[in-house]
Amino acid sequence: MKLTLLNYWRSSSSWRVRIALHHKGLAFDYVPVHLVKDGGEQKRPDYLTRNPQGVVPLLEIGEGASTLRIAQSLAIIEWLEATSPAPPLLPRDPYLAARVRWLAEIVNSGIQPLHNSGVLRLLADAEVDEKVWARDCIERGLLAFQTTAAETAGRFSVGDSPTVADACLIPQLYQARRFGADVAPLGRLLEIEARCAELPAFQAAHAERQPDAPAP
Amino acid sequence: MKLTLLNYWRSSSSWRVRIALHHKGLAFDYVPVHLVKDGGEQKRPDYLTRNPQGVVPLLEIGEGASTLRIAQSLAIIEWLEATSPAPPLLPRDPYLAARVRWLAEIVNSGIQPLHNSGVLRLLADAEVDEKVWARDCIERGLLAFQTTAAETAGRFSVGDSPTVADACLIPQLYQARRFGADVAPLGRLLEIEARCAELPAFQAAHAERQPDAPAP
Repeated sequence: MKLTLLNYWRSSSSWRVRIALHHKGLAFDYVPVHLVKDGGEQKRPDYLTRNPQGVVPLLEIGEGASTLRIAQSLAIIEWLEATSPAPPLLPRDPYLAARVRWLAEIVNSGIQPLHNSGVLRLLADAEVDEKVWARDCIERGLLAFQTTAAETAGRFSVGDSPTVADACLIPQLYQARRFGADVAPLGRLLEIEARCAELPAFQAAHAERQPDAPAP
Repeated sequence: MKLTLLNYWRSSSSWRVRIALHHKGLAFDYVPVHLVKDGGEQKRPDYLTRNPQGVVPLLEIGEGASTLRIAQSLAIIEWLEATSPAPPLLPRDPYLAARVRWLAEIVNSGIQPLHNSGVLRLLADAEVDEKVWARDCIERGLLAFQTTAAETAGRFSVGDSPTVADACLIPQLYQARRFGADVAPLGRLLEIEARCAELPAFQAAHAERQPDAPAP
């Protein structure tokens, strides 16, 4: 089954899905959607017919008239987990899986939406220092992630294998540095980040290694 | 197994979990956490030790030292689905389940975080009209929900049975009206809302029927 990922190199939700695809060893076509150029390619009519919310990522399954589509990073990853269960990104135990999803949502609904470009543009227009806002959201959110993960962490956020929680954490730590957030109090998370950085799937999914990333 | 839901009557993420609990016929203790009084009971140290993110809802499973805890509405609902699968809130087919999760995330990460009280307070402080902002986020988000659901909807958002997508939709429509959003273009969603309103689980979970709701 042909898989096509419409996404953007620096988008953290795109990055999460790339980690999952590489972790499971699934080949996919990479279609860049530039979020900034010409007001954002994700707002073009041909993209909106595929994803009315006008955001990335979007996974297309198959080709032609029977193409199936899934948007929203965690919905895509759950589908990948159901249809390509090995190697897993969720523990089998329902409670541990819930702890993974809890951590994933701290990032997915609790941090990332608060520093998306629409919110930051509005704040900048209102002469609020949008970088201070973004830093504050990220620092508070990642501290909560770290405290919550302390109950379950082994080598990774929950146990000793990478999970969806780590797939959410890694891109968020990149955004933290991008906005100048203080990551010094996040020692436990930085250890997990270092372990993820050793894994080929996390390496292949890294923002700066994508075809639409600007040359260094 | 004793279940305790720490939550707030008007919180849409609390409301989603109440729908799931009632749908599955699970008894639970209702513990109100007042989000406004005295700066918010969710910011008190005893609550933060249970949920470091300082948000509701929080589900406690069991009692005493061995109590298990899950926060984040969709993580809680996925746990309920795994441990009490009947009656379901997710289709068995992985693609239809993905469509449900996609819709749920349009609300959970795409709408609700943008009009949470922290964001609105910041905007008000910056003399941005926070109600216009909230209305705009809600109207755009729910239109995207409706267009996305058009491919899958039957009597409910995906197919002919209520799902997690509907459990997210119903509280969001309540918030839409609360902020004065224009729901007239959402005809298909209002039909689904009317069908949900006939179901005992959705009736029992309604914000205004909770013990901590103010008297009418």
